[in-house]
Amino acid sequence: MTASSDARFLRACRGETVDAVPVWFMRQAGRSLPEYLAVRERHPILEICRTPELVAQVTTQPVDRLGVDAAILFSDIVVPIQAMGIDLDIRPGIGPVIDKPIRNAQDVDRLRPLEPHEDVPFVLEAIRGLVTDLDVPLIGFGGAPFTLASYLIEGGPSRSFARTKRLMYSDPATWHKLMDRLAESVLSFLRAQAEAGAQALQLFDSWVGALSPEDFDALVAPAVQRILGGLADLGIPRIYFGVNTGPLLDRIAALDPDVVGIDWRVPLDKARTRVGPDVTLQGNLDPAVCLAPWPVVEERAWEVLRAGAGHRHIFNLGHGVLPETDPDVLEKLVETVHSWRP
Amino acid sequence: MTASSDARFLRACRGETVDAVPVWFMRQAGRSLPEYLAVRERHPILEICRTPELVAQVTTQPVDRLGVDAAILFSDIVVPIQAMGIDLDIRPGIGPVIDKPIRNAQDVDRLRPLEPHEDVPFVLEAIRGLVTDLDVPLIGFGGAPFTLASYLIEGGPSRSFARTKRLMYSDPATWHKLMDRLAESVLSFLRAQAEAGAQALQLFDSWVGALSPEDFDALVAPAVQRILGGLADLGIPRIYFGVNTGPLLDRIAALDPDVVGIDWRVPLDKARTRVGPDVTLQGNLDPAVCLAPWPVVEERAWEVLRAGAGHRHIFNLGHGVLPETDPDVLEKLVETVHSWRP
Repeated sequence: MTASSDARFLRACRGETVDAVPVWFMRQAGRSLPEYLAVRERHPILEICRTPELVAQVTTQPVDRLGVDAAILFSDIVVPIQAMGIDLDIRPGIGPVIDKPIRNAQDVDRLRPLEPHEDVPFVLEAIRGLVTDLDVPLIGFGGAPFTLASYLIEGGPSRSFARTKRLMYSDPATWHKLMDRLAESVLSFLRAQAEAGAQALQLFDSWVGALSPEDFDALVAPAVQRILGGLADLGIPRIYFGVNTGPLLDRIAALDPDVVGIDWRVPLDKARTRVGPDVTLQGNLDPAVCLAPWPVVEERAWEVLRAGAGHRHIFNLGHGVLPETDPDVLEKLVETVHSWRP
Repeated sequence: MTASSDARFLRACRGETVDAVPVWFMRQAGRSLPEYLAVRERHPILEICRTPELVAQVTTQPVDRLGVDAAILFSDIVVPIQAMGIDLDIRPGIGPVIDKPIRNAQDVDRLRPLEPHEDVPFVLEAIRGLVTDLDVPLIGFGGAPFTLASYLIEGGPSRSFARTKRLMYSDPATWHKLMDRLAESVLSFLRAQAEAGAQALQLFDSWVGALSPEDFDALVAPAVQRILGGLADLGIPRIYFGVNTGPLLDRIAALDPDVVGIDWRVPLDKARTRVGPDVTLQGNLDPAVCLAPWPVVEERAWEVLRAGAGHRHIFNLGHGVLPETDPDVLEKLVETVHSWRP
């Protein structure tokens, strides 16, 4: 069945004309679908991530139910981190928790460079199975160096990123060593996913918006550029996403991703003036809007579509699907996007 | 001793020339000072807030130790909420927790309009004492309607503000009723603080950056405008602050505050182009920078000062002092700001 390279989602990534705006949702695999929650009752998240049959099952569920234009590999950004030698757990209601966080140069040495075929074969096996079965493109994914580093250093989710920034400012040599190590491993991981058949790749830098533009340039952008540049020869779309990135959009565009994910804080027409004409925008309905009555959701979706102007636009939420979301709303949202015309 | 209306901080608020850039720090009263922590060992936060002698003591501590150009009343944004009839607690490491959150129109009726002289006399008494003793201006403060509503509806701190936004989108009548009730009470509260002697007022809308510009305009700005407009005749500076407000800055400036607080995500020279020449900017060193070695802090402070250009600029952090901050760094930062010349 393998999806055609002419699929609507891939055409939009490349800036080609489309018959309708393509749509998928971050966290569409997981969170709110009852068929996913049924799997989760029997298996912890990291066990699902390590079991190709389960990955295939939960990755496919939203494609079947919602009619989205792309599948995204079910996984977690900490999967390669664990495979690099870091003990961690994902705790319900909290997120990733790392008992022995990284705080200095010796700690960075605990991170073994990732060898995808040896360390995460289950991810590649899941991808190989999925791409033969799916009739929409499969998006592979990985966490970006800053966001991964924030979990490694804080030991879990953070509001202020105080420890991460302290390391960054106090010991730039160790920081750059950590960025290099992560960039190298994320690059291998994403290349291996593409070789296994993923037809697009999304780099999740969810928390990068915590940085000033100056810090982004000096301390994070080189690692992102190394990954995006190192994927360029594959010829498949590279998507870069973070929240609160309004003040960074011109810098992000300069790193030459094919697609930039935008949160709801910056209307797409404004974002377009910041990133220029040669990049596709992905977004940007506030996930909380999906909790509103349908007429409100529909009106807001139309606003996003109008601001996206039907060209170089992939409809998505501005961040992941909230757990409280009714899947029927997502299904109607897909229909709304597909039936809209510029 | 009452501070002169010619004080450096007030002159900068009004856009007059200053002999040096004024500086104070959000959360300077509290968090990291050992003399504050000694008080906290004996008294819970809300008890301090309700005891004028303790408020005076912890409000004055950072002025004495750090040499800042303004004092900010020690209090918490939930103090008036509690006085309006809502049971709440401030839990260490979490923040405000409300057992019976507001979820519908009947719940909004549980919020009695605030009568400052009856409900929070201790705040006004603390202010009257402070302004006779302090030789720098005292900033009074209150939470803004959106940020207060987010605690009332979520029942505590939130990342997604899902419940708040659900109410906003699903039941705009109840939302506006809540905004009106809060705006009215916050306005009375701030007017009473000014009458008691506060020489400037800061409206904390810390979480307003979670909103899209469109939602800000339609659902929040009218309540902010009602407060700022209702304070205008007092003739004292009105400061409006939130984080992640980059995409909202032009809208915030249109509400006509005298001073706009800016976080570290938007350099002050960029912020200036967004808000125009007639407003003072307050900020915007990343609080995490204060955890770095001194030469890094100094260099970053100079960058903020250069971007602020020495006119209509009040130096501050981009958010509150982090608990891990060494007070000696804050003290040196004050000296650095005062000795800098454009």
